[in-house]
Amino acid sequence: MINIDQIKSGNRRALAKAITLVESKLDSHREQAQDLLNQLLPETGNSIRIGITGIPGVGKSTFIEAFGLHLIKQGKKVAVLAVDPSSPIRGGSILGDKTRMELLSREENAYIRPSPSEGALGGVAQKTRETMLLCEAAGFDVILVETVGVGQSEYEVAAMVDFFLVLMLPNAGDDLQGIKRGIMELADALVINKADGESVNLAQQTQRHYKNAFHLLSQDGFWQPQVKTCSAKENEGIEAVWQMIQDYANQAQENGFFDNNRAQQSQDWLKKLIHEMLEMKLKQNPQVKAQLPKLQQAVLDQTLTPYNAAQEIIKLL
Amino acid sequence: MINIDQIKSGNRRALAKAITLVESKLDSHREQAQDLLNQLLPETGNSIRIGITGIPGVGKSTFIEAFGLHLIKQGKKVAVLAVDPSSPIRGGSILGDKTRMELLSREENAYIRPSPSEGALGGVAQKTRETMLLCEAAGFDVILVETVGVGQSEYEVAAMVDFFLVLMLPNAGDDLQGIKRGIMELADALVINKADGESVNLAQQTQRHYKNAFHLLSQDGFWQPQVKTCSAKENEGIEAVWQMIQDYANQAQENGFFDNNRAQQSQDWLKKLIHEMLEMKLKQNPQVKAQLPKLQQAVLDQTLTPYNAAQEIIKLL
Repeated sequence: MINIDQIKSGNRRALAKAITLVESKLDSHREQAQDLLNQLLPETGNSIRIGITGIPGVGKSTFIEAFGLHLIKQGKKVAVLAVDPSSPIRGGSILGDKTRMELLSREENAYIRPSPSEGALGGVAQKTRETMLLCEAAGFDVILVETVGVGQSEYEVAAMVDFFLVLMLPNAGDDLQGIKRGIMELADALVINKADGESVNLAQQTQRHYKNAFHLLSQDGFWQPQVKTCSAKENEGIEAVWQMIQDYANQAQENGFFDNNRAQQSQDWLKKLIHEMLEMKLKQNPQVKAQLPKLQQAVLDQTLTPYNAAQEIIKLL
Repeated sequence: MINIDQIKSGNRRALAKAITLVESKLDSHREQAQDLLNQLLPETGNSIRIGITGIPGVGKSTFIEAFGLHLIKQGKKVAVLAVDPSSPIRGGSILGDKTRMELLSREENAYIRPSPSEGALGGVAQKTRETMLLCEAAGFDVILVETVGVGQSEYEVAAMVDFFLVLMLPNAGDDLQGIKRGIMELADALVINKADGESVNLAQQTQRHYKNAFHLLSQDGFWQPQVKTCSAKENEGIEAVWQMIQDYANQAQENGFFDNNRAQQSQDWLKKLIHEMLEMKLKQNPQVKAQLPKLQQAVLDQTLTPYNAAQEIIKLL
């Protein structure tokens, strides 16, 4: 059995075991995992949760290593979690996370956990959320949640963190269209990495461009998204990124946004889980399985209104 | 009873009656409305559906009037539907739509329908979608779906149209943060209105700024969002907007995006309706009503995992 006190005291082996339990697909393990999480919940929440995204090649591992080492120097305990399901196509993961962040992985106060394989209910995001809680209970005070930024995972990560950071390359040219449009909405900061050597000027130019772009957009909350440059390789600008995130956290805690946002996130997550469980019930219903494709086709063929099709499905439950 | 052939022949009174039926909250009316829609479905889909949004003061009514009159001159039949529930705060509606677009409303080939009051299932969006289908069956070949651009209605409109146009004011200053970040993701075009008199230069400057901003973003599909200027008041640039939308439609039809997008929209809408119907079932369940607030609080108080809370709710069904 997993010893709760060992997790609370930061025992790495107990933590690893707990995460494995959380990631298991067995129903009996899932129940045990929920029991464990319920007992640990009062110890959770005491970290800054930072989401980090960026396309392959942006230097994500190098950044996270430099950033993590900086945090450890400040006396922090740092956990690095990945959201993307491992896949040979997706760069980093194929090498294994320990190889990716060799210096960081050797640190006593760092804990690096590779991404879980595709999960059941709530998907990989559910497992990452739960792993995050376990790390908090184990005393980690900065959680970095990493995603490759392909597909929908940015939205999932943004919905579970306090601060969402987008790493970019120095690219100011008109032809180089970098950031996905939806990301603009999520980003609390853009950080242009690889601002070193001959790319310093280009990085600053990119910074100006994106600053202007942000100025043209209206602000949702108290925070004006920042655009910074850094060189993870040369360890430049890393401190300023951490300073910015601390500023954000201080302001957000003072004006109440920090707690409100977390409360909202947990309510949204509950709602999403209820939806997913209902959807699973629906999908597993043999009558729905048989009827849904026909009804979808009827809607496409313009022989049945979506409203009536939805009614038919609901009647089957 | 409503005469289907009269609707198909474009009889305005029959169309108005059908829309009133669609907007009704009575269950019996809803059933009748669905029967009617099912019969008319084969006649629907033959229009270009254009969403238009913009903050109050941007000159939305003036633009739609000028744009609509231009389309009518090209031999088109134009329907104007509004998505926002009428409210004294929201500008335009208080004056009534006929007063807003006096010249357009007098045209034989224009049909202006003020926004329905808050709807039941699927909300105002559901009623607007159904009204759109009725207008198509009645032979309207351009449908303009208007929204005030406050809150979530832009997303709802973008999900039901072929082309999404955002009206803006000439504002190039750093301090003036105009467009909401999420809108960037939805927009197929920004049109800077009021490019007249002393504002012409400012409008062009604004255009350049937003063009640059779009260049920094990656493209999702075949279409690079356009930024145009116009003066609805002086009837300048209106033709170019229509030309752009036709270009879009032609390209999208050729490369298959047009039909694929509509098919996707209708599948998404079906899914959303199923979710909403399930949610209504959930909300109406007396046990869920009693338990949900307690479970939500337990999640906030960190005494219960969201997963367990969701399980509890599902068990009650």
